Amino acid sequence: MAPILLNCMGNDHNDYIKQLVQVKNPNLDTMEEDILYHFSLGTKTHNLPEMFGDIKFACVGGSANRMKAFAQFIHKELELPGNPEEIIDICEGTDRYCMYKVGPVLSISHGMGVPSISIMLHELIKLLHHAQCRDVVLLRLGTSGGVGLAPGTVVVTDKAVDYSFRAQFEQVVLGKVITRSTELDEGVANELLQCSSELQNFPTVIGNTMCTHDFYEGQGRLDGALCSFSNEDKLEYLRKAYDAGVRNIEMESTVFAAMCRVCGLKAAVVCVALLNRFDGDQITSTHDVLVEYQQRPQVLVSHFIKKRLGLIV
Amino acid sequence: MAPILLNCMGNDHNDYIKQLVQVKNPNLDTMEEDILYHFSLGTKTHNLPEMFGDIKFACVGGSANRMKAFAQFIHKELELPGNPEEIIDICEGTDRYCMYKVGPVLSISHGMGVPSISIMLHELIKLLHHAQCRDVVLLRLGTSGGVGLAPGTVVVTDKAVDYSFRAQFEQVVLGKVITRSTELDEGVANELLQCSSELQNFPTVIGNTMCTHDFYEGQGRLDGALCSFSNEDKLEYLRKAYDAGVRNIEMESTVFAAMCRVCGLKAAVVCVALLNRFDGDQITSTHDVLVEYQQRPQVLVSHFIKKRLGLIV
Repeated sequence: MAPILLNCMGNDHNDYIKQLVQVKNPNLDTMEEDILYHFSLGTKTHNLPEMFGDIKFACVGGSANRMKAFAQFIHKELELPGNPEEIIDICEGTDRYCMYKVGPVLSISHGMGVPSISIMLHELIKLLHHAQCRDVVLLRLGTSGGVGLAPGTVVVTDKAVDYSFRAQFEQVVLGKVITRSTELDEGVANELLQCSSELQNFPTVIGNTMCTHDFYEGQGRLDGALCSFSNEDKLEYLRKAYDAGVRNIEMESTVFAAMCRVCGLKAAVVCVALLNRFDGDQITSTHDVLVEYQQRPQVLVSHFIKKRLGLIV
Repeated sequence: MAPILLNCMGNDHNDYIKQLVQVKNPNLDTMEEDILYHFSLGTKTHNLPEMFGDIKFACVGGSANRMKAFAQFIHKELELPGNPEEIIDICEGTDRYCMYKVGPVLSISHGMGVPSISIMLHELIKLLHHAQCRDVVLLRLGTSGGVGLAPGTVVVTDKAVDYSFRAQFEQVVLGKVITRSTELDEGVANELLQCSSELQNFPTVIGNTMCTHDFYEGQGRLDGALCSFSNEDKLEYLRKAYDAGVRNIEMESTVFAAMCRVCGLKAAVVCVALLNRFDGDQITSTHDVLVEYQQRPQVLVSHFIKKRLGLIV
């Protein structure tokens, strides 16, 4: 640890230790080897501190292609040397997730739904811990259904809530259900909102994000293989959600918020609304419009990262 | 509909209609267009009956690479014309899932966890319905953690059970929790067990499969980023699971069983155990051993399909 870094941070050793990414598992320190199976990485086969020790921003999103595109985009935005087209998937030994490192930014895909992102987060938090990373911010960049918002609006999550609009996540541990808080970091959310105001024509709101465990019945869609409710039932549920402060619906935010909170990691969720669910269920926008919408969380997070790194005053 | 096909089936028109893949959603018939968003397919943009009308076996599994390998394997096994290396991903317009068609067999990836497979199943069942497929069997080919089984053992699921060993799946519909049965087709399971006995050195059991919503805390792993229980607590939970007939643990079987059952589709789950959870948590087998294990469900399902098609007596 170079003294200059300690000086830079202006903190004493205790604060420095506190900023290290913490796991909440005493067993890990006694394990001879930790295989991060779904990343195809391990503590014996890879030098994790060397590979990842300088990470400050871990950006996650559902789609592998989108997270590759984000890695290439942030590469250009940070004006790093090398060809962004040639970035390599660090997890190429597996097809469960993909992972790209661009300077202090990690870009990782997590698939769809709470279980899929939860596996990734367990292994990501262990990776950041093994690599002795410190002061890392986690950001989820996603797509969502808007609730009372025009398509293309970006939602920075205030609270991640469940199907009953409660800011909690139910986790089963050895057959027992425990409840974890899903509150996110208010400071980071406000910084992101401030960033959005510095961009041109960038409709952004802070609101609650409802996390469901499916895309059809749980979100009140009328167009799944199964549907037992009417359009009126659906609209009533969406209105209740709106009244509870819900502005968008996606499928990963509660476990993301809960796990980051337990491990003391600052985290934020930034999702674009692809449609307004009061107007329909199917995503009918053209491919090009959808691609532009999906770039918005990337543009916002890139602006946030550049400000944090002092590249924009 | 050629009369010869009706004759073949030896059924009258009502039986023929009954064998069509059914959705449980009256709205679908009134929709002008149905966009299967996560497949990048639609009823207006694609001729689904022409593309998929002859499907008899829909095989699903978590990993995209593995389901591509299965498509190539079954292509060789069925001795179909053309180069198996040149099969095309029908869902190439999206990276959410991949899909390959090989004669009457569809091979589709579903990612990890209940929400991810649930999106795929909604769109698959709608696809089979729009394509007017009939008499289709759905098979999930997966990997799992064994409970009291030697690594490499194949488990054909009797009942898919939840974290409390109940054969049910809890689905949230518009904020209310409803419960669905997860019983699978006994006949297909027994056919698969019979097939295993016809293969050489093919350790296979029928047992209950526990479906959890995460890989670490929910399955009693000691090696996640979060762990608040002891090795003794873990072993006690696994013993209780074993006593309840659980022989393996994975993350998709309950919703797979429940949705197929509601739609009247015959379905089976065939997973190989990659490790014995009584002996540890980490998957430490070599790459080559794991590759061979993962081929076993493919070999068994291929044998089943060939028997059903009359290619093996």
